[in-house]
Amino acid sequence: MSRFINDKYATLDAYTPGEQPQDKKYIKLNTNESPYPPSPETIKAVSEAEVSSLNLYSDPVCKELKDAIAKRYNLDTKNIFVSNGSDDILNFAFMAFGKKVAFPDITYGFYSVFASLHGCEERVVPLREDFSLCADDYLKNDSMVVIANPNAPTGMILPVDNIEKIAKCNPDYVVLVDEAYIDFGGESALSLVKKYDNLLVVRTFSKSYSLAGARLGYAMGNENLISDLEKIKYSTNPYSINRLSSRAGVAAMESCKYYMEKCALVADAREYTSSELKKLGFVVLPSYANFVFAKKDGLDGQKFYLELKDRGVLVRHFTSERIKDFNRITIGTRKQMEKFIEITKDILRSENI
Amino acid sequence: MSRFINDKYATLDAYTPGEQPQDKKYIKLNTNESPYPPSPETIKAVSEAEVSSLNLYSDPVCKELKDAIAKRYNLDTKNIFVSNGSDDILNFAFMAFGKKVAFPDITYGFYSVFASLHGCEERVVPLREDFSLCADDYLKNDSMVVIANPNAPTGMILPVDNIEKIAKCNPDYVVLVDEAYIDFGGESALSLVKKYDNLLVVRTFSKSYSLAGARLGYAMGNENLISDLEKIKYSTNPYSINRLSSRAGVAAMESCKYYMEKCALVADAREYTSSELKKLGFVVLPSYANFVFAKKDGLDGQKFYLELKDRGVLVRHFTSERIKDFNRITIGTRKQMEKFIEITKDILRSENI
Repeated sequence: MSRFINDKYATLDAYTPGEQPQDKKYIKLNTNESPYPPSPETIKAVSEAEVSSLNLYSDPVCKELKDAIAKRYNLDTKNIFVSNGSDDILNFAFMAFGKKVAFPDITYGFYSVFASLHGCEERVVPLREDFSLCADDYLKNDSMVVIANPNAPTGMILPVDNIEKIAKCNPDYVVLVDEAYIDFGGESALSLVKKYDNLLVVRTFSKSYSLAGARLGYAMGNENLISDLEKIKYSTNPYSINRLSSRAGVAAMESCKYYMEKCALVADAREYTSSELKKLGFVVLPSYANFVFAKKDGLDGQKFYLELKDRGVLVRHFTSERIKDFNRITIGTRKQMEKFIEITKDILRSENI
Repeated sequence: MSRFINDKYATLDAYTPGEQPQDKKYIKLNTNESPYPPSPETIKAVSEAEVSSLNLYSDPVCKELKDAIAKRYNLDTKNIFVSNGSDDILNFAFMAFGKKVAFPDITYGFYSVFASLHGCEERVVPLREDFSLCADDYLKNDSMVVIANPNAPTGMILPVDNIEKIAKCNPDYVVLVDEAYIDFGGESALSLVKKYDNLLVVRTFSKSYSLAGARLGYAMGNENLISDLEKIKYSTNPYSINRLSSRAGVAAMESCKYYMEKCALVADAREYTSSELKKLGFVVLPSYANFVFAKKDGLDGQKFYLELKDRGVLVRHFTSERIKDFNRITIGTRKQMEKFIEITKDILRSENI
């Protein structure tokens, strides 16, 4: 830290992304990436002609990309916001709407970083004992509500009628539903954005659209919410989306059938993984995402993570008290998950558990 | 605007980027893009294999890109920061270091937007009558100093010994030198970053590296300043650079000879343009950038802009009082500039000026 930094950021704890070690080739089940490449149409869209045009700025309005998203979800272009990954959008939303913010104790770790960065007052609401979210906890509220659905790192879903109840009971506060993982299962709140002007649905191309490396996120909501986000974007970095990612995003939306087929494969591999882990005595939370959150009595969470890493498999371990026995395991291909189960058996054997 | 937005942003005026009209094909001299494509090496670096790997996150540490920049400028990797365009970096710097900020009245318009966004107290310092910057105005100072060098939209340079004087006299405040246009002429302050721990030099790949559409910026300075910027980046959007732009950036640094040759061509075309405009009776400020700032007595700035647009040439006109007679004309290829001069002559004839 330098001696020049503003006092308000001096004690800020930044977010820690999943590790990206370069020391050897791992089976990477730690950052919820898709194990599948982008669709052939997407790859083709990033053509040499596009790369040769990089001397020109991208369209700051992102018209084609917004149009493609609007078309796919049967919305108007004015209801669509796009930016450099969904983290970028979440950051803007906390900035724009988050004087006070309520979110669960166990959820995407970045929410509390955004809150801290922007000086938002936090209301951290504990999940139930079984890690399910109790909608009633958010009905008498005086703050923006942020809910990841499916939740991370649990993978658990909140039924959409619960989302509606929260949106309905908080007409003066934004209810942000972070649907990064919705394409892997569960019902979206998208059908509600025309009904509730306080509902903002945030999505990403990083998981179900195999474009984590392209940095593309989108949000859908009432046009006034969208215009607030645009104002923040145009006050920080108007050209936040590069030309190539923009082309890839349009092509991805237009070839969504490919991606939804891959999501179904991931969901199958997830069911296989859950079932095998349960056979081995693991507790596996009911996941609707492209990961499972699992623990086993007698197996230290941190130790399991390290043993897996030692054997070439990366998963994600969080140290916070309530979930320190768990690991979050991204779902890869069926073959990768078979290998993961095999290695897990090996670890259990060598630990005599 | 929605009724949910935080009061502090309700009156925010966002930045207005240069227009990107889609109605017809223009000679685009309005956003300071390079008229040349990226180098063959850069284009090759964005390979189909890279595009096929977009399902994987980019390296948030951006090691390869930082290493390539460090190597080119003979610095240490820990002295390099990279993010999604230099606007992104300026935004972080205003956030991190800008409780109070001093900058000229005529300069990059985004500075006052960043200041307003982050609630920084502004000290707006008028340039001299001839649009030159008086370093002495920044010596008795109690704020961060931000200087675009060459300045925009004037193109004028501040000699580096003046920058040193400012850095030396403000040991307790960050002095940010925005060198977006330095490769087109003028001396960089880079040689001073090892000497002054308060000096931050910000650069972009958008102009001299023909990568406006890739969104890549970098900053060089003392490692503590860099680590503050990293902290802000990791608290907003850690993966801010996508995989493809990162590859392009590495290749661009490694093929810098190509780009410096193109900068020399632009500088030649700039001298041609200045000289021709002067022959036509224009006042042209002495530019070290890839644009010229020019006006002509009797020719309304706004009208000249509109007449050019009508004839298929886009330049940038600013409406603020002190510079409303001027237009900023990006330097394209020699051929484009000959066409621009020809059209300008045509306008002068039809206006009887």
